[in-house]
Amino acid sequence: MSQAFGYAAQSSTSPLAPFSFERREPREDDVVIRILYCGVCHSDIHQVRDEWGGSQYPMVPGHEIIGEVTAVGRNVTDFRVGEHVGVGCMVDSCQCCDACHDGLEQYCAEFPTMTYGAVDRHDGTATQGGYSNHIVVDRHFVLHVPEGADLPATAPILCAGITTWSPLRHFNVGEGHKVGVIGMGGLGHMGVKLAKALGAEVTLFTRSAKKAEEAFAQGADHVIVSTDEAQMQAAADRFDFLLDTVPVQHDLNPYLATLKYDGVHILVGLIEPIEPALHAANLVMKRRAVVGSLIGGIPETQELLDFCAEHDITCDIEMLDIRHINEGYERMIKGDVKYRFVIDMATLEQARQEELSRTE
Amino acid sequence: MSQAFGYAAQSSTSPLAPFSFERREPREDDVVIRILYCGVCHSDIHQVRDEWGGSQYPMVPGHEIIGEVTAVGRNVTDFRVGEHVGVGCMVDSCQCCDACHDGLEQYCAEFPTMTYGAVDRHDGTATQGGYSNHIVVDRHFVLHVPEGADLPATAPILCAGITTWSPLRHFNVGEGHKVGVIGMGGLGHMGVKLAKALGAEVTLFTRSAKKAEEAFAQGADHVIVSTDEAQMQAAADRFDFLLDTVPVQHDLNPYLATLKYDGVHILVGLIEPIEPALHAANLVMKRRAVVGSLIGGIPETQELLDFCAEHDITCDIEMLDIRHINEGYERMIKGDVKYRFVIDMATLEQARQEELSRTE
Ligand SMILES: [Zn+2]
Ligand SMILES: [Zn+2]
Ligand SMILES: [Zn+2]
Ligand SMILES: [Zn+2]
Repeated sequence: MSQAFGYAAQSSTSPLAPFSFERREPREDDVVIRILYCGVCHSDIHQVRDEWGGSQYPMVPGHEIIGEVTAVGRNVTDFRVGEHVGVGCMVDSCQCCDACHDGLEQYCAEFPTMTYGAVDRHDGTATQGGYSNHIVVDRHFVLHVPEGADLPATAPILCAGITTWSPLRHFNVGEGHKVGVIGMGGLGHMGVKLAKALGAEVTLFTRSAKKAEEAFAQGADHVIVSTDEAQMQAAADRFDFLLDTVPVQHDLNPYLATLKYDGVHILVGLIEPIEPALHAANLVMKRRAVVGSLIGGIPETQELLDFCAEHDITCDIEMLDIRHINEGYERMIKGDVKYRFVIDMATLEQARQEELSRTE
Repeated sequence: MSQAFGYAAQSSTSPLAPFSFERREPREDDVVIRILYCGVCHSDIHQVRDEWGGSQYPMVPGHEIIGEVTAVGRNVTDFRVGEHVGVGCMVDSCQCCDACHDGLEQYCAEFPTMTYGAVDRHDGTATQGGYSNHIVVDRHFVLHVPEGADLPATAPILCAGITTWSPLRHFNVGEGHKVGVIGMGGLGHMGVKLAKALGAEVTLFTRSAKKAEEAFAQGADHVIVSTDEAQMQAAADRFDFLLDTVPVQHDLNPYLATLKYDGVHILVGLIEPIEPALHAANLVMKRRAVVGSLIGGIPETQELLDFCAEHDITCDIEMLDIRHINEGYERMIKGDVKYRFVIDMATLEQARQEELSRTE
């Protein structure tokens, strides 16, 4: 066991605060990673506050991890000490079901082991995430960060990026396709960039006309203000795909009407009951589909990291001092961040020094 | 114009009754068909009673038409007098949009001209359906009935059959696939037969354990009683496709849970809001899709007629005297028909003779 330091929630109502805990000794297939940066995802807030139920405490959140390899287990030949690597939402899976064989570990029949808030399948310990100074992860779930990558701006690719990339690739989105991206937060702005880089014609749907400027800056070809009925009606039967990043309940029906026949409405942000009710006629009359998609598999995450390096795509981020994480959460809830906070772990070391001097 | 005779509703509350009307003279591309048989579809009842809104009267229903060619327009070279032919739910479309070019006229950007209750795109007259002694239809919407086909049992293939066939073919259902068919009425029993003939392993979901026997007789490999929670739970993550033929609101969530990752829930019977609410997590967590499908295109209808002839597949029917059509509707509403009524138009001629002798 080795001593680790991070920020944890002790209960669903307590703020994140400094926390010392243990990481396992590396097993044969493990990679030990000194964490340099960690993105802050909306789902961190949900889980810290137990808004989805089942949260276990203490909880160290964080699943958009960029770091440097400091040691490897004896079976590990594909990672070397000093290399920059990433870890996303998952740290293990059964590795033998159909989904795992297909490189879609997120759909593992036994459910993947999530980076934090889960239970290690081998030793039964709680997994703890990336708001910490190091992590130990099975090599199958460690990603290579391409040389020269902008490290902090790469962190959110591991969740926000892959969540939009996975369905775009699954449906072979590319040239000749008209793609509508609904919402422009962490997921939405990556969706715009990636769909555009894949060759699609991209339209951002936003409730606020003020976001048009930003959307064009991100590469959108068109903007539709979704609260403007005339604009929505003018877009009838236009799109091949809708990438819906909205994380709260909303009416899908007006969006469905903008899909061509055989169009696909992809939900990546919503895990609630679909209300107001989805109208079956909107599906039946044009053979439209509503499909959900969850993060992405490890091979496609590596593909995305390589694609982003090649196309010079990063996430737009604001650096965050981990000592301000609780204020960061409040700003995220207000939508006051463009588009993702990334924690600089140098600030965690400062916090650790402060803790040490306080307790001496 | 030529004189036609059929059964029509004069309003949403009047029973079907004998009715004389005019059919157009054949245009250059038209086929004139003496009707021999016509299937009775649930949607006939909905439209006769104006349950979907917008019905126009008088209305001669019927869109599962089998007949014999009696004349052709001068451009028609692919049909000959005396040949057995079929007409389904559509009699025209724009014939120049993407969907029409793809042979999916049901998704025509201008909406197809339905066999009855619609307006002819050329002369603005009301279309009237197959509960009648003859019909005049553009050759693009006339199907060849293979030699030796059981004519009355072929009629429902033109709606009940193609409605299940079209999505099965679109999704390339075949060997190695596990398909669940939900409901066993006119659509469901065709879905079981066709999915089985395509090589799939077929399970019927039914609310009534009594239907198991019937389902096996139709070719189902397994039966799940959907009201039995233990049976439903044992089927978790099992199916590649669900063919949902239920025409009334029902909870999709327990069925979704029986789909594998990437599984597809196909709605062919429902055109209502989906209530209780579809839970987005049931889609997102396994990349499942809910898709709608509407009847089928003309090329795939011809493909189905040929497939059925080759595989000796027909619809299970009960012959109906058109003079009993109103009682037939009542029995259908009670689910008291296995599985489709087909009107023998010889009884329409008898009705016409009776009318003549009454008015003389
Ligand atoms: Zn995340
Ligand atoms: Zn697995
Ligand atoms: Zn029908
Ligand atoms: Zn068309």
